[in-house]
Amino acid sequence: MPKKTKIPNATIERISLYARPLEILLREGTSLISSEGLADLCRVNPAQVRKDLSYFGEFGVRGVGYAVGDLLEEIRKILFADRVWRLAIVGLGNMGTALVRQENFARRGYRFVAAFDSDPGKVGGEAIPGLRVHPLKDLQTLVQEAGIEVGVIATPPSQAQNIADILVDAGIRAILNFSPILIRQPQGTVVENVDFTVSLENLAYRLSKVD
Amino acid sequence: MPKKTKIPNATIERISLYARPLEILLREGTSLISSEGLADLCRVNPAQVRKDLSYFGEFGVRGVGYAVGDLLEEIRKILFADRVWRLAIVGLGNMGTALVRQENFARRGYRFVAAFDSDPGKVGGEAIPGLRVHPLKDLQTLVQEAGIEVGVIATPPSQAQNIADILVDAGIRAILNFSPILIRQPQGTVVENVDFTVSLENLAYRLSKVD
Repeated sequence: MPKKTKIPNATIERISLYARPLEILLREGTSLISSEGLADLCRVNPAQVRKDLSYFGEFGVRGVGYAVGDLLEEIRKILFADRVWRLAIVGLGNMGTALVRQENFARRGYRFVAAFDSDPGKVGGEAIPGLRVHPLKDLQTLVQEAGIEVGVIATPPSQAQNIADILVDAGIRAILNFSPILIRQPQGTVVENVDFTVSLENLAYRLSKVD
Repeated sequence: MPKKTKIPNATIERISLYARPLEILLREGTSLISSEGLADLCRVNPAQVRKDLSYFGEFGVRGVGYAVGDLLEEIRKILFADRVWRLAIVGLGNMGTALVRQENFARRGYRFVAAFDSDPGKVGGEAIPGLRVHPLKDLQTLVQEAGIEVGVIATPPSQAQNIADILVDAGIRAILNFSPILIRQPQGTVVENVDFTVSLENLAYRLSKVD
């Protein structure tokens, strides 16, 4: 029986991480995994795995482990990953182009359905086959017409906050920002600022503890 | 007096996040911030901020707050971010090119000093001014000569594990992987697999809780 307590962000992030090796195990035909096995694959401790999953109900059988397929399905429900999300990308420089090309997104139901750039040389072309690049002035109209739910920002930092404001004005309530500035989160919206130096700092810290 | 207990990865990641608004506050001339203020900027609760920082010692003054400059300096020491790290990038497609161009890296002491690609059309050119692109066959030698500490992988997924193995053979003990596969972590090394869909899942989950 799922508990109604507030679930920490860190738990949500780990739950999302647990899904990665489970997908691989499922493809490889492994049907059962222990909390120790899953913990090992994700570099957390087994008690953490059990605690995180306990927020959402009882998936495991004591002494046996978790059914890989069932657990993955449950995690995808928990994360609302069992549906398609419609994304717009703004900014098709190197980062934006890399993002729309990542096969991971589409595989997990995150589908880019609109693309925008301020460069007239890019407008009218395709970011990937079938994904036409539109000018920024069409953003508001197209976001509404295409039913976009998530705006992904990959513009230079000087434009990022302005683009976020336009996206929110157009009715978008979730923003994933790859531009290296902190986007402010207006009331009623959610913003994730992706910062790769966080990963580097974590790596450097962990390296200092290995030996 | 810092405690000697093992510090959770989640704490390290939050500590790293706390540094972001502190940098901005410092540039803006703000000298003091309460745990409530810092918590608000980072979207965690104040008790979490105080608990995380307590692992490393006593930075704050009860009822007054934290000295922004001192706290930032301490965090940078904790994260070994008060020094320069030497990075190699492997793979100069869109993602690799976006990474070496990110001003955030250099600003935080993460310096790309070598670049590698398998494309003869890229070899011999410069990824950014001063960063020459070398062929993969020179990787092992150059990594040792240039004193590289961190290998950043931005190759297609089919090559990523092979590149990781070559980097480890060359003596590199820290790998940041942007290719959408899980790189195995050999004994004595640390690997961070960056997966943007984790951010999207977190965003989707948080969006479902807003209203």
